[in-house]
Amino acid sequence: MNRLADLDWKSYQSRTQHGDAVILLPIGAIEQHGPHMSMNPDVLIPEAISESVASGLTNALVAPAISYGYKSQVKSGGGNFFPGTTCINGKTLIDTIQDVLIALARHGNRRFVLVNGHYENSMFIVEGIDLALESLRRDGIDCNIMLLSYWDYVDQTTIKAVFPDGFTGWDVEHGGVLETSLMLYLHPDLVNMDKTVNHAPATFPPYDRFPPEPSWVPASGTLSSASKATAEHGKLLFRVCVEGIQGSIKTEFA
Amino acid sequence: MNRLADLDWKSYQSRTQHGDAVILLPIGAIEQHGPHMSMNPDVLIPEAISESVASGLTNALVAPAISYGYKSQVKSGGGNFFPGTTCINGKTLIDTIQDVLIALARHGNRRFVLVNGHYENSMFIVEGIDLALESLRRDGIDCNIMLLSYWDYVDQTTIKAVFPDGFTGWDVEHGGVLETSLMLYLHPDLVNMDKTVNHAPATFPPYDRFPPEPSWVPASGTLSSASKATAEHGKLLFRVCVEGIQGSIKTEFA
Amino acid sequence: MNRLADLDWKSYQSRTQHGDAVILLPIGAIEQHGPHMSMNPDVLIPEAISESVASGLTNALVAPAISYGYKSQVKSGGGNFFPGTTCINGKTLIDTIQDVLIALARHGNRRFVLVNGHYENSMFIVEGIDLALESLRRDGIDCNIMLLSYWDYVDQTTIKAVFPDGFTGWDVEHGGVLETSLMLYLHPDLVNMDKTVNHAPATFPPYDRFPPEPSWVPASGTLSSASKATAEHGKLLFRVCVEGIQGSIKTEFA
Amino acid sequence: MNRLADLDWKSYQSRTQHGDAVILLPIGAIEQHGPHMSMNPDVLIPEAISESVASGLTNALVAPAISYGYKSQVKSGGGNFFPGTTCINGKTLIDTIQDVLIALARHGNRRFVLVNGHYENSMFIVEGIDLALESLRRDGIDCNIMLLSYWDYVDQTTIKAVFPDGFTGWDVEHGGVLETSLMLYLHPDLVNMDKTVNHAPATFPPYDRFPPEPSWVPASGTLSSASKATAEHGKLLFRVCVEGIQGSIKTEFA
Amino acid sequence: MNRLADLDWKSYQSRTQHGDAVILLPIGAIEQHGPHMSMNPDVLIPEAISESVASGLTNALVAPAISYGYKSQVKSGGGNFFPGTTCINGKTLIDTIQDVLIALARHGNRRFVLVNGHYENSMFIVEGIDLALESLRRDGIDCNIMLLSYWDYVDQTTIKAVFPDGFTGWDVEHGGVLETSLMLYLHPDLVNMDKTVNHAPATFPPYDRFPPEPSWVPASGTLSSASKATAEHGKLLFRVCVEGIQGSIKTEFA
Amino acid sequence: MNRLADLDWKSYQSRTQHGDAVILLPIGAIEQHGPHMSMNPDVLIPEAISESVASGLTNALVAPAISYGYKSQVKSGGGNFFPGTTCINGKTLIDTIQDVLIALARHGNRRFVLVNGHYENSMFIVEGIDLALESLRRDGIDCNIMLLSYWDYVDQTTIKAVFPDGFTGWDVEHGGVLETSLMLYLHPDLVNMDKTVNHAPATFPPYDRFPPEPSWVPASGTLSSASKATAEHGKLLFRVCVEGIQGSIKTEFA
Repeated sequence: MNRLADLDWKSYQSRTQHGDAVILLPIGAIEQHGPHMSMNPDVLIPEAISESVASGLTNALVAPAISYGYKSQVKSGGGNFFPGTTCINGKTLIDTIQDVLIALARHGNRRFVLVNGHYENSMFIVEGIDLALESLRRDGIDCNIMLLSYWDYVDQTTIKAVFPDGFTGWDVEHGGVLETSLMLYLHPDLVNMDKTVNHAPATFPPYDRFPPEPSWVPASGTLSSASKATAEHGKLLFRVCVEGIQGSIKTEFA
Repeated sequence: MNRLADLDWKSYQSRTQHGDAVILLPIGAIEQHGPHMSMNPDVLIPEAISESVASGLTNALVAPAISYGYKSQVKSGGGNFFPGTTCINGKTLIDTIQDVLIALARHGNRRFVLVNGHYENSMFIVEGIDLALESLRRDGIDCNIMLLSYWDYVDQTTIKAVFPDGFTGWDVEHGGVLETSLMLYLHPDLVNMDKTVNHAPATFPPYDRFPPEPSWVPASGTLSSASKATAEHGKLLFRVCVEGIQGSIKTEFA
Repeated sequence: MNRLADLDWKSYQSRTQHGDAVILLPIGAIEQHGPHMSMNPDVLIPEAISESVASGLTNALVAPAISYGYKSQVKSGGGNFFPGTTCINGKTLIDTIQDVLIALARHGNRRFVLVNGHYENSMFIVEGIDLALESLRRDGIDCNIMLLSYWDYVDQTTIKAVFPDGFTGWDVEHGGVLETSLMLYLHPDLVNMDKTVNHAPATFPPYDRFPPEPSWVPASGTLSSASKATAEHGKLLFRVCVEGIQGSIKTEFA
Repeated sequence: MNRLADLDWKSYQSRTQHGDAVILLPIGAIEQHGPHMSMNPDVLIPEAISESVASGLTNALVAPAISYGYKSQVKSGGGNFFPGTTCINGKTLIDTIQDVLIALARHGNRRFVLVNGHYENSMFIVEGIDLALESLRRDGIDCNIMLLSYWDYVDQTTIKAVFPDGFTGWDVEHGGVLETSLMLYLHPDLVNMDKTVNHAPATFPPYDRFPPEPSWVPASGTLSSASKATAEHGKLLFRVCVEGIQGSIKTEFA
Repeated sequence: MNRLADLDWKSYQSRTQHGDAVILLPIGAIEQHGPHMSMNPDVLIPEAISESVASGLTNALVAPAISYGYKSQVKSGGGNFFPGTTCINGKTLIDTIQDVLIALARHGNRRFVLVNGHYENSMFIVEGIDLALESLRRDGIDCNIMLLSYWDYVDQTTIKAVFPDGFTGWDVEHGGVLETSLMLYLHPDLVNMDKTVNHAPATFPPYDRFPPEPSWVPASGTLSSASKATAEHGKLLFRVCVEGIQGSIKTEFA
Repeated sequence: MNRLADLDWKSYQSRTQHGDAVILLPIGAIEQHGPHMSMNPDVLIPEAISESVASGLTNALVAPAISYGYKSQVKSGGGNFFPGTTCINGKTLIDTIQDVLIALARHGNRRFVLVNGHYENSMFIVEGIDLALESLRRDGIDCNIMLLSYWDYVDQTTIKAVFPDGFTGWDVEHGGVLETSLMLYLHPDLVNMDKTVNHAPATFPPYDRFPPEPSWVPASGTLSSASKATAEHGKLLFRVCVEGIQGSIKTEFA
């Protein structure tokens, strides 16, 4: 059992009081991912990865995911104007990260791994961590925190296996083969491959424009086509991420 | 299918664009509930109630729960010093409620039901709603929002059935018969009745004390004993809440 | 002399520098209380109680009241839409409580009693206290803070004396017999019993609705009729509160 | 009757609904003013001036004073390190001013006079006003707000009468002849002339130093001696302020 | 070389690590200063003064100026409604001062001189300093900070030399002889004396009015005429400020 | 003349009142860039680019740069622990961007180009823009804002010319050939090529670690060696950026 909130408090206490438990915190977003997929892959994928990572470690727990993330951007997530994309302000995300880390650290935890599933979250998470550490230091508490986005663990070998026809780049992977394959593997009921749209990968000018210009984004909301996604690819991607993250944690918290 | 984030965005759009969908938002907390139960009943119960309520309405969707809530208080939740109780600041909760409501209203939604599962959240949710409505009005958007705590739907008949020996009051129901029965019915795997502790209901002086005094709280963390909880009671409680809330929604949004 | 701000600073210093003075801080609101009464009972009553409590203690001072409180709610205060009800945001109240406590603690004070007169304030005061204590701890300062709402000291005997025909409950006491009797006793010039309105106690559904629906509230703004209020009842209520609070303080700060 | 909160809401409504009532808001501070005087002159003086001003106008009301003000500075108030000086953060004062103005404007009020009694408050009040006006404009509400510090109405004739031996300047008037005379006139019970200290007016270098250096400030906490203060001077000062402010209001809101 | 940001980090480290370097921080505003002058004198003048001051000290560095300041007020800067006047909120200025001071103190710096060039900034700088010092103290860091507005160093002798026909007071010096002379001396290319407007010094009632009333302000935007400004006066003013500030720093940080 | 703050307000007014001026706002940071270079390239480079871009457009102005940026991160800037790196909180940067944009838009400007010089700023600028646009929309003001980081305009041809031995990637360009070449071209006095350090490009694990681990970063503070930087490369880089940005602006604001 490695879901933190599924424990009763005494069991939790016995596993965390020595400060050597690794607490994984998945952080996602509710964001459209095309007409063929649910709007929660940015939550469900890091949650599943975190649980699988935790199961391979001696004493690791997965905290409840932070489901609402920062505003979707045109070039990475299609943009905040799509129906269903449900995002929070940057300051709110900063505060949430800060508060949750401080609360968990006050229980005695000293080792954290924040598993991000939504590109736009990254810098706000960084700031939340920085403010939490500053606050905790003033209480005499020193923590070690790892922050990662799971896709940074996908190596060239896997890329080649998943994209045999060539990889069009992380930039346009929103709702594409990567996320769809992972969802097909993890939550096939939330994907309907019949609805995938075939279109060329999106291309963008070197600047951003505000307010966002919907015509920059494929009408599907995906930045590249998911039509070649498979559950098998998903399994491969999942394993390389889980194993890579486990390796990093073991190195960092040995 | 009534889980909002399980929809693809086009399906969501078709269900919400006319503004007559009812969006239910469960709001909970991660808080110890005694040695016999997991720390997430304040999330799981309103989530389950929301889904059951939604299934009985024509067009209702359940948004992803807000899992982290306001700081546990001694007299209602045992206090914020228990290991595992993982709470956020009041301002963070206010901002989260505000942001999520605004995002959902911008999709065209005009009808919201906030289903609270954690007593301490209430006033911060009220403020989040008030600020969201003020902000939306300035964008020319008027919404109707219902806020409820599910236990307010438990009527006297049900109380008598669940507490045949007399009801010791809502104040001390934290981790007691009510929540434990509901969890036995909804998530029996997260309850271990062998670990319930028998103790008299907690009594408190008419004031609060800060910093909290742990000796005021039973060592178990529960404010009254859960030993008489049953899944059958849970089913009864669940139904009276679900039916009552459905009734209120139909009245309000007829 | 026990009004803090009426002292010169040297007298204040001599009374507070050892940290054993009890500082009482009344916290109220400007809120309509029916056509028969001024809009400041939530300030004047806790102020009068605080001063009477202080006069019975060895070394207690009453700080200037915080006059503006959190937004009136329909079910407890009639709602924030009544003319004259003049309320501040939750974050502003949190910050005010935090700042005032920190300033007073830096003078050497370690014992505080916050005397609340407005139901809607409670949780924001709690948060202000929590943040102040966290901040002070980082400066190496530990304080003990009691928080109370005066009506929680009204016992069953007094209820029976004041409501011989039966008590309709705290929920609907806004502008009713309790507050009006206290004002008749303390500030008879601010009550005009000729203007009291006879109406049945308000009843509400088990949820709140936003924006508030004026038709839920009696047109008078009171939630139950004040017509049976008397100065004598007020005296009785005042004494039971003052004595009860004095007892709590002596217990807590013995 | 011109104390806003002493009215019942229906009387308030009838006086304010047409938007032509003038709302005066006294804003002060709790700050040491020497060993001979209470710590509330910055509240009591603008409160008394406001009430006297209001009594000479057709339809004017005095809102409850904001008692806690911005941090005392060495050169104008002795500094924030004196026991008894009890101040709030700048952001809290900004927010309070903003919230109170918005609440009063939503009742229909359009004319405000903010009567400041504490030098250090000024710029934070300015910002609170600016943010309130910006917010109200978005609700389609335009208000006119006058901001004044009462001492700016003391003219040269009065200065000569009150300081026959020469005026040492506003800068060092903290706890000196001006404020003490006004308090002797308005609240003689809060002044003890036997405790005034004779010392030369404070002189300061052209910069401020942080943290404040107590040796810069006379040990009494006053910046010039109050020993020549009289109630008669106070009466003179009071009248010139009240009449001047009435004149300004009539000009501005004719 | 005394511009902090022009150093490479190792040179900076060697000059600051012992905590005895004096860090000067110019703080200005972008604000209209009449039709004859650029909109940056409030930045350029304190920047030039800081650099000249630093060049006469053993180990002093000038940090990059904070260019955007608090909102221009009618009586001191003409008002925030002039085209080109580009100001930030009070809270933003407070936060900026706080953050920059904390960052510089963490490098080991303990001596700061904040050189203000915009009257309206003062109290927000004070608050930023106060919050920074409070935060740093909790990290065990004590700093000494001087805050000054350069014009406070202009003595009576200089006033007489610069204003041979009599000085109309600091209040109306916005865009007048003082600032224009300094700019003629320091940045003659940014002044066009042909465009100065002759008008009597502005006079104002003893209160402020919001929203600001443009008719209170001379149409030029200057509060007194700059037509008698000369570079020679500027040189004189510059020297008296630089020498005075150097003297203060040597006294304070001896 | 295209420096906004160098204009007098009437000239500014005549250039901006029709809303067709393009306002460029450089945003940088004070951050160490190795032992061979000053700490302001992130400000000076976007400032120079902005001015050159503006000079090629019909009506464009460069606003004063925002000099202090978000906290340096290990993998992109060496980390926030280097002496001299002087950064502000994320919320402060968000607020600054928001305030400056709103102020400039209120002058009538509708076209903005934000020219970023510090990678870590990006998402906080995005949020500042989003909040500013939301606020302005409520005032009935619609703006178009372009956001760019200048290096995104460096094309493959230029890369090949500047890095004839192969490009090690943007990730490690901090203080490397790109920035150093630009500074050699623009500000040769702020570069000392004798102090460049030869080291292999930094490599990092796929996660971030907090608090930052200094041993991850080359001791020089640069992430790749600048020893092959030349002014000629700088000129090439400068031109490709300036021309590219001009092209984008013409396309967007045609």
